[in-house]
Amino acid sequence: MEGPKTRCFTGHIVDVVARRIYGGMIVVKDGRIDSIKECDVEPSAPYYLPGFIDSHVHVESSMMTPVEFARIALQHGTIGAVCDPHEIANVMGAEGVELMLDLAKLADFRFAFGMPSCVPSCSKDIETSGYVLGPDDVDRFMKRDDIYFLAEMMNFPGVLGRDPEVMSRIASARSAGKPVDGHAPGLVGEERARYASAGISTDHECTTIETGMAAVESGMIVQIREGSAAKDYAALAPLIAAAPGMVMFCTDDCHPDDFIRGHIDRIVRRAIADGYDIMDVLTAACLTPVRHYGIPAGLLQVGDPADFITVTDLTPDFRVMKSFINGEKVFSSKGQYTASLMLERSVSVQKQLVQHLINNFNARPISVEDIARTPAEAEDIIVSSDGSLFTIHEKGPVTDEVQKIVVMDRYSGDAVPRVAYIKGFGLAKGAVAQSIAHDCHNIVAVGGNDEELVKVINRVIEMKGGVAVSDGKTMKDLPLPIGGIISPLCGHELAFRCSLLDEVIRNAGCRFHSPFITLAFMCLPVIPELKLTDKGLFDSVKFEIC
Amino acid sequence: MEGPKTRCFTGHIVDVVARRIYGGMIVVKDGRIDSIKECDVEPSAPYYLPGFIDSHVHVESSMMTPVEFARIALQHGTIGAVCDPHEIANVMGAEGVELMLDLAKLADFRFAFGMPSCVPSCSKDIETSGYVLGPDDVDRFMKRDDIYFLAEMMNFPGVLGRDPEVMSRIASARSAGKPVDGHAPGLVGEERARYASAGISTDHECTTIETGMAAVESGMIVQIREGSAAKDYAALAPLIAAAPGMVMFCTDDCHPDDFIRGHIDRIVRRAIADGYDIMDVLTAACLTPVRHYGIPAGLLQVGDPADFITVTDLTPDFRVMKSFINGEKVFSSKGQYTASLMLERSVSVQKQLVQHLINNFNARPISVEDIARTPAEAEDIIVSSDGSLFTIHEKGPVTDEVQKIVVMDRYSGDAVPRVAYIKGFGLAKGAVAQSIAHDCHNIVAVGGNDEELVKVINRVIEMKGGVAVSDGKTMKDLPLPIGGIISPLCGHELAFRCSLLDEVIRNAGCRFHSPFITLAFMCLPVIPELKLTDKGLFDSVKFEIC
Repeated sequence: MEGPKTRCFTGHIVDVVARRIYGGMIVVKDGRIDSIKECDVEPSAPYYLPGFIDSHVHVESSMMTPVEFARIALQHGTIGAVCDPHEIANVMGAEGVELMLDLAKLADFRFAFGMPSCVPSCSKDIETSGYVLGPDDVDRFMKRDDIYFLAEMMNFPGVLGRDPEVMSRIASARSAGKPVDGHAPGLVGEERARYASAGISTDHECTTIETGMAAVESGMIVQIREGSAAKDYAALAPLIAAAPGMVMFCTDDCHPDDFIRGHIDRIVRRAIADGYDIMDVLTAACLTPVRHYGIPAGLLQVGDPADFITVTDLTPDFRVMKSFINGEKVFSSKGQYTASLMLERSVSVQKQLVQHLINNFNARPISVEDIARTPAEAEDIIVSSDGSLFTIHEKGPVTDEVQKIVVMDRYSGDAVPRVAYIKGFGLAKGAVAQSIAHDCHNIVAVGGNDEELVKVINRVIEMKGGVAVSDGKTMKDLPLPIGGIISPLCGHELAFRCSLLDEVIRNAGCRFHSPFITLAFMCLPVIPELKLTDKGLFDSVKFEIC
Repeated sequence: MEGPKTRCFTGHIVDVVARRIYGGMIVVKDGRIDSIKECDVEPSAPYYLPGFIDSHVHVESSMMTPVEFARIALQHGTIGAVCDPHEIANVMGAEGVELMLDLAKLADFRFAFGMPSCVPSCSKDIETSGYVLGPDDVDRFMKRDDIYFLAEMMNFPGVLGRDPEVMSRIASARSAGKPVDGHAPGLVGEERARYASAGISTDHECTTIETGMAAVESGMIVQIREGSAAKDYAALAPLIAAAPGMVMFCTDDCHPDDFIRGHIDRIVRRAIADGYDIMDVLTAACLTPVRHYGIPAGLLQVGDPADFITVTDLTPDFRVMKSFINGEKVFSSKGQYTASLMLERSVSVQKQLVQHLINNFNARPISVEDIARTPAEAEDIIVSSDGSLFTIHEKGPVTDEVQKIVVMDRYSGDAVPRVAYIKGFGLAKGAVAQSIAHDCHNIVAVGGNDEELVKVINRVIEMKGGVAVSDGKTMKDLPLPIGGIISPLCGHELAFRCSLLDEVIRNAGCRFHSPFITLAFMCLPVIPELKLTDKGLFDSVKFEIC
């Protein structure tokens, strides 16, 4: 008869709970830590840490399935993630959330999914979304064991005004004993206190030290965000020392080509380089999210699941060597064994997925006539800037610097494209279209030439979702057949195809560093000043269709 | 009872055999072309071509397994490749060749493998190789159905002198009715005629139009090479028009990060842009290799296996849309179905492979003392230049511009590292080591600092083969556990890891565009002027160890 499986690991044990580092041997039995014995170890021995946790991320922004997301994250020493499936929920409703939950269970990874609180984020008069999740949906999901929290409560005016429907969603979470995530950009003083006192315990939208301090003082945990879009580490890093235990790290959005290069490990390296106490840094990176959300991840304590990583050292240049979940090696930087085993899992999921693609896409090809428009002498122009969610509302003539922006409902089947003008992209020679467009993920396109615009829009329609870009000569695309926002491809191939799109958009004259991210926010009505939705130009200051 | 499986494909049929293009419908039954009927088609319909063939390539240079090589090649419309497993044969002998043949059979791809003719390319007094393949080995393999030709006959002095052993290898091929590939850089006039008349029918080492014309005039087919290392298209392109039917395209070596971006399709686009007749171009790209080597690939004729590709058009910007083998779609640019099916196959092969890794690696870690050396006032210095197989022999002092080069036998277990000096790499701050080193694939390393040199060499030894590079701060590596030259990783991940190595070597001060390729040739004794092998400095002009 075979006894329980026992394995030993020797090295420098970084006990983040007890805040000490010592030489030791970890004994793992049946996937759990059976004992840890102190012993002498070589100075060159690896360091054992609890794994890193991304405390707030939309997996969809990686364009990867949860299994592939996990595989890439583990390569960076991230063993778990707190995920809000807000994007797929806007497209596919409860079915989308279920898909993410089902796929997440196939990965050796500590996923903690939340239930999106605000789907859609705007009324249907402002833009067309794929689905509406009502209070009953929220309540039903909050009771599930695999839902860990109520995800970002964006409707902060509703919270401050104690809107009954908003409060009922919060009540669903609280009666299930689960935390509620915040989203309160700029909120300070009494309003911050009132927002927190509704039972909201985190915020990932603090971008200045003032809002960060205000959040901490209201008892909220601040998620220091350093993702592909927003980068708040520089502003918020002092909180690591000022409020240890009240800080977590997150990416919010991590795009494929960025994600394959690094994840939470990058924030940790930077914080070490900046001289923050290693235990404060690792408390934010590993400990606080596990405790706050009740993630079933081990913390390198006797009795815990044997979830941990090994790193070369604790300098700003540390490398992640291995990642373990339940005592099983799920990543090794040497790659030869685990790479193929994990990839095999991922590919088998892909295969099942592509045979049962779920999507919500119903749009017919358009023609050049559909986007014809004679500009007025003084047009409303959206002035965009690189990587920014914000735009400026300008009135003026349509010059060479101005291109057309087109937004089109992708759900209803009989959509009329909306056409307006935009400045900043510099796409004089070509055009780009995509079905990644926050939050409803309709089709958004920008281009300096009507033929090219129609070509890329129709390519996105033909693919039933994805990205297409043309420089007037070459067209490249990336199909996103899962909900029009996720690809079944493996992470590195996806990242490579993104870099090809980047090349074409640069050839087309675009000067933005992050053109696709910027484009994705050009229809988000909740952010000022001027946006275009499938219902028309939206003045986000007056909060109305122009 | 189910009848034979029938599918129809409609578009512009590019009949390279009859040299005409017409609208038509291809009827495929049970994997073969049953009929082609002329019919009217939309101008925007796809173009059907026989797939492209790489007429000479060492799969090992892609660092990919044959299955993964096939998957990436099919993405570029290449449906077959004429392969010389010379690298793995030098490391693993007949077992290595068998491995490649076995793996190739798992791919939906038209592989035509040859038997390496010259393993090793030098005597064992000059360098240590993993294996020696004798005339009997060659004869045994030439009789096999899955061996299509005798691979590049590098020993051209032996051919010109009608060396009996060399001639017996050629005789083995000829008595089996199989072609013999040439390798005769610079050979013209009577010598070219004498080389050809030994029964050698191709050459991929023509780098000038003069040698190219000389080869054609001697009845040899010229392979126009445009790979990651050598680029001969510019010199040889006129042969496409001057000698149609006597030209093929090849890459010889295609490295991962280059290969994922393009393959034979790039040569075809360039030739179309240069105005060559499309039928001449496609004859070289598709037709001639199939006929010359007897590759069992279809040529879009009734009765042929249904192997073909579809492209958007025949302009210099054409895109490959789909690839078919035996009527099965094995690549689609939309990716969602075939990507995961092909990748699944590849990963399952990887999984089997990593459980039964074959290798030939026996070396012990070294210390700084092992590479200590006090430079003489006038040292022999290897002067290297970017991407070149050639070096210059300089005598002079060891200045700041000069670094150490170390070569170490990786087979015998008791090797003493050889140390010499090299100029050009500019690796003042760091070091690089790898087990890709033509042709014997011993360990070669260059570095400006002894500690770093030892670190990267020992990392390669610890991995039992691979690449390691350090900029004095960060070390990155790429394990190559299959023979120390091939990775089980998928192509895109491999390419990504290569780009990380690139970043580190650039940080280390290297100014070469292709440092790893250049390094791989620093021990190849057959190319002048000065090289370092595991036996010592080799003067390739005098052809002796210094």
